[in-house]
Amino acid sequence: MSGDRPRAREFGVKLGTLKPGEWNAITDVAGVKVGHETLISGSGRLVPGKGPVRTGVTAILPHDGNLFRQKVTAANFVVNGFGKSIGLVQIDELGSLETPILMTNALNVGIIVDGLIEYMLKGNPEIGVTTTSVNPVVTECNDSFLNDIRGRHVKQSHALQALANAKAGRVEEGAVGAGTGMSEFEMKGGIGTSSRVLPKEIGRYTVGALVLANFGRMPDLMIDGVPVGRHLILKPVSADGGSIIVVVATDAPLSSRQLSRVAKRATHGLARTGSISGHGSGDIVIAFSNTNLISHFRNEGPARLGYLFEEDLTWVFRATVEAVEEAIVNSLFKAETMLGRDGNTRVGLPLDQTREIMNRFGRLD
Amino acid sequence: MSGDRPRAREFGVKLGTLKPGEWNAITDVAGVKVGHETLISGSGRLVPGKGPVRTGVTAILPHDGNLFRQKVTAANFVVNGFGKSIGLVQIDELGSLETPILMTNALNVGIIVDGLIEYMLKGNPEIGVTTTSVNPVVTECNDSFLNDIRGRHVKQSHALQALANAKAGRVEEGAVGAGTGMSEFEMKGGIGTSSRVLPKEIGRYTVGALVLANFGRMPDLMIDGVPVGRHLILKPVSADGGSIIVVVATDAPLSSRQLSRVAKRATHGLARTGSISGHGSGDIVIAFSNTNLISHFRNEGPARLGYLFEEDLTWVFRATVEAVEEAIVNSLFKAETMLGRDGNTRVGLPLDQTREIMNRFGRLD
Amino acid sequence: MSGDRPRAREFGVKLGTLKPGEWNAITDVAGVKVGHETLISGSGRLVPGKGPVRTGVTAILPHDGNLFRQKVTAANFVVNGFGKSIGLVQIDELGSLETPILMTNALNVGIIVDGLIEYMLKGNPEIGVTTTSVNPVVTECNDSFLNDIRGRHVKQSHALQALANAKAGRVEEGAVGAGTGMSEFEMKGGIGTSSRVLPKEIGRYTVGALVLANFGRMPDLMIDGVPVGRHLILKPVSADGGSIIVVVATDAPLSSRQLSRVAKRATHGLARTGSISGHGSGDIVIAFSNTNLISHFRNEGPARLGYLFEEDLTWVFRATVEAVEEAIVNSLFKAETMLGRDGNTRVGLPLDQTREIMNRFGRLD
Amino acid sequence: MSGDRPRAREFGVKLGTLKPGEWNAITDVAGVKVGHETLISGSGRLVPGKGPVRTGVTAILPHDGNLFRQKVTAANFVVNGFGKSIGLVQIDELGSLETPILMTNALNVGIIVDGLIEYMLKGNPEIGVTTTSVNPVVTECNDSFLNDIRGRHVKQSHALQALANAKAGRVEEGAVGAGTGMSEFEMKGGIGTSSRVLPKEIGRYTVGALVLANFGRMPDLMIDGVPVGRHLILKPVSADGGSIIVVVATDAPLSSRQLSRVAKRATHGLARTGSISGHGSGDIVIAFSNTNLISHFRNEGPARLGYLFEEDLTWVFRATVEAVEEAIVNSLFKAETMLGRDGNTRVGLPLDQTREIMNRFGRLD
Repeated sequence: MSGDRPRAREFGVKLGTLKPGEWNAITDVAGVKVGHETLISGSGRLVPGKGPVRTGVTAILPHDGNLFRQKVTAANFVVNGFGKSIGLVQIDELGSLETPILMTNALNVGIIVDGLIEYMLKGNPEIGVTTTSVNPVVTECNDSFLNDIRGRHVKQSHALQALANAKAGRVEEGAVGAGTGMSEFEMKGGIGTSSRVLPKEIGRYTVGALVLANFGRMPDLMIDGVPVGRHLILKPVSADGGSIIVVVATDAPLSSRQLSRVAKRATHGLARTGSISGHGSGDIVIAFSNTNLISHFRNEGPARLGYLFEEDLTWVFRATVEAVEEAIVNSLFKAETMLGRDGNTRVGLPLDQTREIMNRFGRLD
Repeated sequence: MSGDRPRAREFGVKLGTLKPGEWNAITDVAGVKVGHETLISGSGRLVPGKGPVRTGVTAILPHDGNLFRQKVTAANFVVNGFGKSIGLVQIDELGSLETPILMTNALNVGIIVDGLIEYMLKGNPEIGVTTTSVNPVVTECNDSFLNDIRGRHVKQSHALQALANAKAGRVEEGAVGAGTGMSEFEMKGGIGTSSRVLPKEIGRYTVGALVLANFGRMPDLMIDGVPVGRHLILKPVSADGGSIIVVVATDAPLSSRQLSRVAKRATHGLARTGSISGHGSGDIVIAFSNTNLISHFRNEGPARLGYLFEEDLTWVFRATVEAVEEAIVNSLFKAETMLGRDGNTRVGLPLDQTREIMNRFGRLD
Repeated sequence: MSGDRPRAREFGVKLGTLKPGEWNAITDVAGVKVGHETLISGSGRLVPGKGPVRTGVTAILPHDGNLFRQKVTAANFVVNGFGKSIGLVQIDELGSLETPILMTNALNVGIIVDGLIEYMLKGNPEIGVTTTSVNPVVTECNDSFLNDIRGRHVKQSHALQALANAKAGRVEEGAVGAGTGMSEFEMKGGIGTSSRVLPKEIGRYTVGALVLANFGRMPDLMIDGVPVGRHLILKPVSADGGSIIVVVATDAPLSSRQLSRVAKRATHGLARTGSISGHGSGDIVIAFSNTNLISHFRNEGPARLGYLFEEDLTWVFRATVEAVEEAIVNSLFKAETMLGRDGNTRVGLPLDQTREIMNRFGRLD
Repeated sequence: MSGDRPRAREFGVKLGTLKPGEWNAITDVAGVKVGHETLISGSGRLVPGKGPVRTGVTAILPHDGNLFRQKVTAANFVVNGFGKSIGLVQIDELGSLETPILMTNALNVGIIVDGLIEYMLKGNPEIGVTTTSVNPVVTECNDSFLNDIRGRHVKQSHALQALANAKAGRVEEGAVGAGTGMSEFEMKGGIGTSSRVLPKEIGRYTVGALVLANFGRMPDLMIDGVPVGRHLILKPVSADGGSIIVVVATDAPLSSRQLSRVAKRATHGLARTGSISGHGSGDIVIAFSNTNLISHFRNEGPARLGYLFEEDLTWVFRATVEAVEEAIVNSLFKAETMLGRDGNTRVGLPLDQTREIMNRFGRLD
């Protein structure tokens, strides 16, 4: 169980200078919930259409209310677009997000879109009758190293289940939900999260990040600037490509233009872990603010929205860089060794070796 | 049957100055095929989950070979992004298209993505095992005025059937395939196509366009510059939003950057029919060239690709503007009156009135 | 004098359905001022370094106050980027405009940037000392057909003079300011302007457009949908490329994201005059709203800005399409025949022929 | 003299895993030349209009021939657009660069554009007569902490001189050319450069980077992952904003789309030095390949260009990340302490402290 492995901070790695929120998770942004649906069955031997199944769905809900009627302000940034994420076009145009964000594997995005539409139709009987259709947002990474991805084992019901599982507070990390079968720095990866609280004079807003991490060559791994990957005694087992999905949430009142600036800074956090965003990566960032809600139906008079003074964005940028870096490192720390397709194995980050290396480089004591 | 109604040119409307190809269709670009799967059942009375069904799928195949292994160069342009089209991110990044382009209704994009993935997996056993995943491209408009869109009547098998139906030569237009339930200028719309051949000194390349047209307010309709919509004696029945999907195909050797310039010119053709690309529109353009193929697997040595001299793009732009304008007008001419959801009716463009109006403005004789 | 030639509306051409403002000019947006500095000297014979001079500067001031301290919300759209416009990067990032917009010829953009910086430094002693630098916005078209452009006859002082000349109310059009030497549809072009007022229920906001028009092949010219260019009895004298700069101003409260949607619709207006935005064109649009001002220096608390309900943007789009189309047509109507470099001549649109053609197509009386 | 200070590698800092070229400079890309014009006069006391002058111009020439007639393939990426760089719009549209890239201070961009136009007109008598105009590319950072930037001491002639000074081979770094007055991590910054050579199997292509570095808060500085900035015993003297210009050159045969992917990776290199690309930064990247030349005048038949297999871009990305990181670190190592405006001083990176800190973190022996 990933519950036995420490998060980076518990291990002694303290990234950046800003303080994390209560859970050091994206759920520190009030109203945000996360739900996982984890699918694991079969041993390492591939039985076409049967497995092994090492995949799942993760759902992020931006707030508690009816998201279609009260949309959150949102923006995207594509670090590298070798990916199949769905729904970004409308976020770009309208600057808003009207469904939860779902994550799954690359060949199940269609089914999960269908499941998310079903969910939205249920909650909003006017969609497609008296009002517009709905823009489902589904992101993905390719878990084919461990998962029988061609079996397309995720179904619409799993989307609904992940949404039903969503809750505030502590977020399960590592090989859970959409992260179940993911690889990271040629070891086991998956879901990670972290958060930062802005100083009092910037309004004590929270910035949270959640990643679905599935990227990286082992020798490139850096933890807090230490080239851990180069010193691990472990046989790298390379896989093609590798991607990351980053979701940044905040309660700071930001416009979609400001959020697109924030989304770009996920790149900086990613770079600090050793990623070069290789050709084959689908490195996609979605950022949202659940403070400036946008009504689907017309209100009386023009809306008035409050914004952070543009200069203060530097603080949000810093929080984003730190939270993304730590979320990635958390996904690595929390993910346990897993056996999957064709006997492929991903080893969890060896903690003893990591401790020894980081000590050698003067970072833990 | 839409076969009884004339295309614009047969009616006497000759748009632009360049000559159309043999079929005056996107299939004039050698190798391009189009297939429709049309779903019609039920009367005008809504029986939730049962219909009336007024929808379908249209497939565009860029060439005859294995598209995943020999991708076509491609680009997008988003005129207005209130739409749910899928697959644009990777086209932007890699400048290539590796699946057929499917069109359907807005709430069935997920299922059609799933159907398209199934189709691609069948043809390419290495996907998700020894090579990357695949980027399905699915576009949509909202046919809810006539179709029981919430019933989500399109299934994976319909995607496969539209793909199987694809053929070269004459293209069926109007209320067929994905166009079955679409509305245009508050009349009946749907699928339209047209093409242009470049002059000999530019290499006699062909530019073809196919549209899924579902947009427009009646008074805005212009045909060859004549404000037909303002003079029609017909009661406008407004619907929300309205969108258009435009696919531009060519055998001119163009880079993805050049194709993105071409895609933008669809706007000009669209504008000439009276569109202002209203807020609620998903006006999306995909352009591809099937001459410069891009191998999925590594070739010996760097590829060498030929390009049109940049200045000659002006000719391709002109061809695009004309073909898109005519494709839209064709979709209107060919679409027959249809009764749909809740007794909603879309009338086919009244041909007699149109002839009378255009004569009055000195355009037909 | 261009004063003798009628504007399109005076001639009887009434484009679109919305009403123009008092001056049918960009200055109908309260606070907006326009100033021209026109440079004409020398006969048609080229004396290198001496002329003939057929060029100038046009200045657009978004409001009466200190624009650096109270910036206007702004956005760009590049229809075609074969152009040398300056300052767009920062508008994209920050969504604001902090200097007047200057227009001039393509080889004088540097000097005019320098003149604009001088102007900004004078008004803001803190720039470059206690605060940031400033983002000068300068746009251009290539007037080399008539003007000795290599002589670079525009100086910093002309920028200052155009700014000093800026005033509200009636705007001079045709061959004035930056429009002095410009060509349009192979005839004489230059500056044109128009405006539209939104209906009462959308708040009676005004949308104004001003264009620097220097584009088009004669046979492509359409006026109110009539193919006037094809029927003119006039020898086309082609020139390379051709560009247009469009400035859209409004007092509707719009965010920069919304303004970027508005800016895109200038394409639709442009397309209706017959442009295909050829390869060699620098077709650039800048849109601003002078209602939502953005303070340079920190205010107490986060700013609160009011916005138009997104759906109402359709009205702003319609106003933009109409105002841009009419501004272009006005630039053509108002520009008088001019002799320039190497005896090159640009003929003003022949009004009698135009009247006859438009009558023939049922558009006048 | 900065000549006395070591470059990072001479100091013992070896970043990344790929090998640098002969000069470890952008000039390792055959044909690329760099020239500086350095302007220093006056003491620390500000005499308005007189100085102190701490500024200059740096020129990068992509190849030896006539760049207007044989353009290089190019692309941009804007990490953060609070900047005044000029010429990016046309690079985006046409994917090519037709002038040298000049760098200077933020308030002299106009004059330097003018100087660059003068240079281009001299070399190309057809510009503005028988062919199009020219797209000058000028980038900038704000050197106002040390330089009397309001005095605008750079003139057209300095642009011409920097261009005349351009040469292959060793590149002067630190407080030279446009870097003269720049600040970095609240110490002295300026020009830095580095290069990487791709492995034999990728064709031994070279990737070079040159930066104009003017950014960063001291505590953020990381060198090879070591948080040097947090451990320096030095009083930080904060300045507003801070920017970086990055030029990436290569002889790998890349399309403009591929180069735009490369340009994005400069972000990763930048992030590794501790930048978060704060709100006030103009972080702009231009990348070019001088292998695939693009003729200004029409050639017989379509051009044929060779490209790197897309997957091999991962190698170019790696080289870019490493070269950009090292170029930044070099700019810091080479820049000497400087006294400037109002007695402001920027201290050169204290080498003894840096050595001690890096030893402490196990990085130098």
